[in-house]
Amino acid sequence: MYSVSIIGSGNAAFQFAGLFHAAGLHLKEVYSRNAASAAELSGKYGFKVINQLDDLNTDVDFVLIASSDQHIATLSASMPAINGLVFHCAASVALVDIDTKHASKGVFYPLQSLSKQRSIQWEKVPFFVEANNASSLKLLMQLAGQCKVGATEMNSEQRLALHTAAVFVSNFSNAMYDAAATICAEMNIDFKLLLPLIDETAEKIHSMTPQQAQTGPALRNDLLTIEKHLELLGKHPEYQDIYQKINNLISKSRNL
Amino acid sequence: MYSVSIIGSGNAAFQFAGLFHAAGLHLKEVYSRNAASAAELSGKYGFKVINQLDDLNTDVDFVLIASSDQHIATLSASMPAINGLVFHCAASVALVDIDTKHASKGVFYPLQSLSKQRSIQWEKVPFFVEANNASSLKLLMQLAGQCKVGATEMNSEQRLALHTAAVFVSNFSNAMYDAAATICAEMNIDFKLLLPLIDETAEKIHSMTPQQAQTGPALRNDLLTIEKHLELLGKHPEYQDIYQKINNLISKSRNL
Repeated sequence: MYSVSIIGSGNAAFQFAGLFHAAGLHLKEVYSRNAASAAELSGKYGFKVINQLDDLNTDVDFVLIASSDQHIATLSASMPAINGLVFHCAASVALVDIDTKHASKGVFYPLQSLSKQRSIQWEKVPFFVEANNASSLKLLMQLAGQCKVGATEMNSEQRLALHTAAVFVSNFSNAMYDAAATICAEMNIDFKLLLPLIDETAEKIHSMTPQQAQTGPALRNDLLTIEKHLELLGKHPEYQDIYQKINNLISKSRNL
Repeated sequence: MYSVSIIGSGNAAFQFAGLFHAAGLHLKEVYSRNAASAAELSGKYGFKVINQLDDLNTDVDFVLIASSDQHIATLSASMPAINGLVFHCAASVALVDIDTKHASKGVFYPLQSLSKQRSIQWEKVPFFVEANNASSLKLLMQLAGQCKVGATEMNSEQRLALHTAAVFVSNFSNAMYDAAATICAEMNIDFKLLLPLIDETAEKIHSMTPQQAQTGPALRNDLLTIEKHLELLGKHPEYQDIYQKINNLISKSRNL
């Protein structure tokens, strides 16, 4: 049975601790600058709390650095050299950011929008794995297998591009839902009436490309309707601006 | 059994003819400036083709004007006064645009993204109905019942707002998918890897508001990641622009 220690006690640390616990791994130590959260993680999953990074037991199979992105490099340099594999789970941090003192290094990135109020269905989350050599890669793939999650190898540059694309499909689509919710609220329309359309829009691109799936006034170059929509958005110059910018994207793709 | 005639022979005319045919309505006459399409609609569903709008049989329960938006008013004025109910199915055209010569007028608008290559699951499409009086409204609700579709009453102003919101959740989300597909293609990443995230993003707002569901670098004010993404988008100034504009929307909603 693999042993794992975790650096950090934020949302990612809790989610991964839950995943590793469910997979039957031996949860060894947790270190965090936030003593209260570390104690909570310890109480929930049985980690031993470490107060000094120096005290981290180096004889462990995996150490996950689940801190915020900008601290990963520093933390990996501050901890003692680990006999096992040191990895992070960040989309936009390169593998080389993990300090060279560790012989085995990797990345184990889950592509999903993790909201605290929503439990994760891990079996539906694709993982993207990168490692500094073949044996580290094999270890991370075995970890994925143990956790019963799907994993694909991907380098740091591709992972950054995938994350950028993920921001468009997830955060930005959700921002479009949020704008629609505002428009609906102002006209006493129940936003839930849009859910079948939202579902169909997501469902369509399982069998068509987004370009094939596009519809609407911008694609039809229906200037009369576009004018009416822009007028309706009069109270929201920021929505008008985005409406026109995205219409331009759609018009451009129509002419491809 | 209700009888229905259709003005127009485009995508909407074909889709509605299919719906009415499946509901067992009597498909009476079709008029279109496009003779070939009218003949196709006639051949497929058994309509009689009318070559002059004047020849339209006025003794019919429903006449659907399924033309493009800008012709609805003119067509309704050019046809003889109909004994039955004259209606259109356009999101952004007001009820009052149908000529006053017709005693019964209405709107029967399906909220869905209708792609030609994709068959419609009508039972999942919400309809929005408006009528010039109580008996016209009752007739359109009976038509909805006959077609086994769900219908809600909504006035022209709300329908325009709903359509504007629909453009955001459907056309604009799809434009975000399309941008992501472009980013993926350039880095040899399979766009399909994003499908679980796309599905989860749509699924989340069935139980949370879009504001509660938001995640990502803009919400966390993760400037380091945002900088990396903007750099990666260097070849696409139009994506960089939209990235920053939508980030601003998300930041603003964070501070609410």
